[in-house]
Amino acid sequence: MYSLEGVWPLPQIFTSSIERYPLNPQAFYFGYGRQSAAQFGCSVLDAAFIRYYSLIFPDYTGNGVLRFLEDKPFHIEINVDHDDCESYPHEDSSEKYNLSVSAGKASLNAETVWGAVRGLETFSQLVYQDDFGSYFVNQTEIDDFPRFPFRGILLDTSRHFIPVHAILKTLDAMAYSKFNVFHWHIVDDPSFPYQSQTFPDLSRKGAFHPMTHIYTQSDVRRVISHARLRGIRVLPEFDSPGHTKSWGKGQSDLLTPCYSGSTPSGAFGPVNPALPSTYQFMATLLKEVSSVFPDSYIHLGGDEVNFSCWKSNPDVRAFMQKMGFGVDFTKLEAFYMENIVNITTFLNKTAIVWQDVFDYHELIPKDTVLHIWKGSPANYRKELSRMTKAGMRVLLAAPWYINHISYGQDWRNYYTVQPLNFSGTAEQKKLVIGGEVCMWGEYVDATNLTPRLWPRASAAAERLWSDEKQTSSVDKAFPRLQDFRCKLVRRGIRAEPLYVGHCKHEYQGV
Amino acid sequence: MYSLEGVWPLPQIFTSSIERYPLNPQAFYFGYGRQSAAQFGCSVLDAAFIRYYSLIFPDYTGNGVLRFLEDKPFHIEINVDHDDCESYPHEDSSEKYNLSVSAGKASLNAETVWGAVRGLETFSQLVYQDDFGSYFVNQTEIDDFPRFPFRGILLDTSRHFIPVHAILKTLDAMAYSKFNVFHWHIVDDPSFPYQSQTFPDLSRKGAFHPMTHIYTQSDVRRVISHARLRGIRVLPEFDSPGHTKSWGKGQSDLLTPCYSGSTPSGAFGPVNPALPSTYQFMATLLKEVSSVFPDSYIHLGGDEVNFSCWKSNPDVRAFMQKMGFGVDFTKLEAFYMENIVNITTFLNKTAIVWQDVFDYHELIPKDTVLHIWKGSPANYRKELSRMTKAGMRVLLAAPWYINHISYGQDWRNYYTVQPLNFSGTAEQKKLVIGGEVCMWGEYVDATNLTPRLWPRASAAAERLWSDEKQTSSVDKAFPRLQDFRCKLVRRGIRAEPLYVGHCKHEYQGV
Repeated sequence: MYSLEGVWPLPQIFTSSIERYPLNPQAFYFGYGRQSAAQFGCSVLDAAFIRYYSLIFPDYTGNGVLRFLEDKPFHIEINVDHDDCESYPHEDSSEKYNLSVSAGKASLNAETVWGAVRGLETFSQLVYQDDFGSYFVNQTEIDDFPRFPFRGILLDTSRHFIPVHAILKTLDAMAYSKFNVFHWHIVDDPSFPYQSQTFPDLSRKGAFHPMTHIYTQSDVRRVISHARLRGIRVLPEFDSPGHTKSWGKGQSDLLTPCYSGSTPSGAFGPVNPALPSTYQFMATLLKEVSSVFPDSYIHLGGDEVNFSCWKSNPDVRAFMQKMGFGVDFTKLEAFYMENIVNITTFLNKTAIVWQDVFDYHELIPKDTVLHIWKGSPANYRKELSRMTKAGMRVLLAAPWYINHISYGQDWRNYYTVQPLNFSGTAEQKKLVIGGEVCMWGEYVDATNLTPRLWPRASAAAERLWSDEKQTSSVDKAFPRLQDFRCKLVRRGIRAEPLYVGHCKHEYQGV
Repeated sequence: MYSLEGVWPLPQIFTSSIERYPLNPQAFYFGYGRQSAAQFGCSVLDAAFIRYYSLIFPDYTGNGVLRFLEDKPFHIEINVDHDDCESYPHEDSSEKYNLSVSAGKASLNAETVWGAVRGLETFSQLVYQDDFGSYFVNQTEIDDFPRFPFRGILLDTSRHFIPVHAILKTLDAMAYSKFNVFHWHIVDDPSFPYQSQTFPDLSRKGAFHPMTHIYTQSDVRRVISHARLRGIRVLPEFDSPGHTKSWGKGQSDLLTPCYSGSTPSGAFGPVNPALPSTYQFMATLLKEVSSVFPDSYIHLGGDEVNFSCWKSNPDVRAFMQKMGFGVDFTKLEAFYMENIVNITTFLNKTAIVWQDVFDYHELIPKDTVLHIWKGSPANYRKELSRMTKAGMRVLLAAPWYINHISYGQDWRNYYTVQPLNFSGTAEQKKLVIGGEVCMWGEYVDATNLTPRLWPRASAAAERLWSDEKQTSSVDKAFPRLQDFRCKLVRRGIRAEPLYVGHCKHEYQGV
């Protein structure tokens, strides 16, 4: 019945005994310790208590259940060092917690409310039911903290529009696997669903539909608030100068007109880096974005810029000449990206860019994070080595392009990634801030997002949270992940099966 | 707005004009023609009218809508030649229909109620809405009939248990693509969820769980009834002698004890063909199955029999000697399958068996259908040729193992199959009764079934229903299938996207 398999991702230090304590839904209490800096009224924790009550007691409906006098109460007491109840999680937020479960009582101590939220998730996974539906938790002692501070999931809401409710559901599931960054890839060629206050034409003309396929300011606030309560940062990506075709519809003179010989072909390329108006547009847009999204990071993209349209355009070529770039278009791209990064620096935001940017940029600020997305393990190991050697911080996504599907248990590939297995010093390894699971949207929308994402992303979650030595066996992980997947199903997440078998409670939706 | 793309699978003969007629949900009437053999009270059609009313008018809730006097009524008049309202669809059921849409009226004529149901599906796909939500249908003339009489989908409820509601939802979606056979692969090694009246221990001990992971007699009746109303046959598969490990738990002395040298190893192999009790068990079970499932066909499996356990068992070897089979275990398997087929013949059922059986069996009745599941196109074409040359009827599944997934638009592979492109006479080609999409269950349960099945299975549906010449271009099919996929989404089916883009109405569930 009970097993150490009960928590995913695996806590760093975990001891427990066979001594078990019954839990009664009607005599179960969350409370703040007297010394706790946070007390009742703490928005993050008060909301977490309500959520986790239902997650701990999934069968309990509160209707018509008698309370028996002999039921012993169980208290879970939360203590946090900082009253950061109304803040947002950020890159340095501690997620450490200590959880101690004994007779009638559990103590959960953390430096921050975010650590407390992680500890509540762990506690909820420790509780189990016997065949008669009674709830139990075993004597347990846990000291836990994440291996990496950045554990993200990318959703692409440009290639397909993903309704807000599906994003919120994804945030719920992210919290169950202790992910802490939602990377919102909101702009790309096919559509631009973000309804800008300053440039409403971008979505009016660039979204799939100006009314039904957009994220209003209120939608965005809802996503940020839902994420915050779960200790999840929202990292918006406003990718440029490529991947911006959808912007061209609502903003004239922004994209580069491509030429065929000496006449415009009618097609448009990347953002036009030769026009001052481009930088004014980007500064205005990024200023809005900076105020809408509270996170101190912003993702600026910079990937896969195709130079052929720039090359064809006489104004761009004239600009190249004027700037002394010769025929080296990488210098033009460098010039563009440096301007954009400077804008974000001015706005007090730290930039994350795709790895492409690193190749061209000597002048990029040292605090910029490079996002590694290309290639095979041999390839990304080389890049990890090269970029950290240059003193840059990096974020690893390459091995976790989870939109790529194949038949069978591909979660094993996601699990066996070794993010620090590259040639470099201990100082270099510290520059790896974490990893990201990317769900690009070519073939994904709300109809199939959840079963493609879960529990495959959870394999990466354990790699990013847990101690690698304790989680080196994929075969030992298998039954634990099966068990965790059944927990997700029980919580209403359509997480797909890993292999033949069953869950005690199968998915009940349609 | 309106296009010929509107019906999937493409009708055989289809003409329409730009003349369009408004439809008002409050002045829309289904009715039986005076000459129709079926009249009000016809269970199949009365139920179809209710279903299709909601499918035709998805926005209409019936609440608070005023009826305007100027609204012109629209009548759809159904005429069928046979009063087969209370029957089950069978292998020879005509699905032909003629649909004529003109001002204020549509006439739907069919030989059977099953043809009328197909015609209602077509009509429902012809109706469209403008940007203000008003409903229209264009002047249309359709003569339609299926290319193949057998168009099936296999679900595997042994490797994972699929709750009844998910099976019913699959039947709904099957009707939208005009599939007409639900092949229920109900037994296999991992579990046996069918609750038998005569052998209740089979599921009590062989299901994943004896109470929650079974199909009761009432569940089975519900599935059959739901399928019947949609013109879908339910073809049960009781696979043997292999793929039966789950039976061993509830029926002692049924499976062959495997030996390691001269002692039993504790493992069990296929059904034991050396014991008379085996045939008594199978006869009793198949008798029950024959009465529970009304279809005149039964699938007997017969695939992938591993001889090593039989070879190890001294009793089986003694039986081989007694029967004069020498060391040719294919003769033993032939002996077993012939006995089982004879049982079904006695029960007035026609057998379908997997292709493996054909290789060993001279004595198999000529009306047995061979189910081709192995190999590459080169391979299955050879088998189609060889088996039809022997005068056997065949059913093609090999190119439609849809559980195998890959990144990208693999529906194109399912679409471009040419089931009759093999070396053989016209007589041989007539022996191809149809095809089947197989969703084996290793990695599939209710969490991911729907988006894996739809619209990928619909690609096969058009191949099996429509004229191959008119549907030879996969590129022309692409926008039509995208459009159809959005219709499925609108109807609440989580059909996954084919590529970048959007539906006017995205999936609204979570």
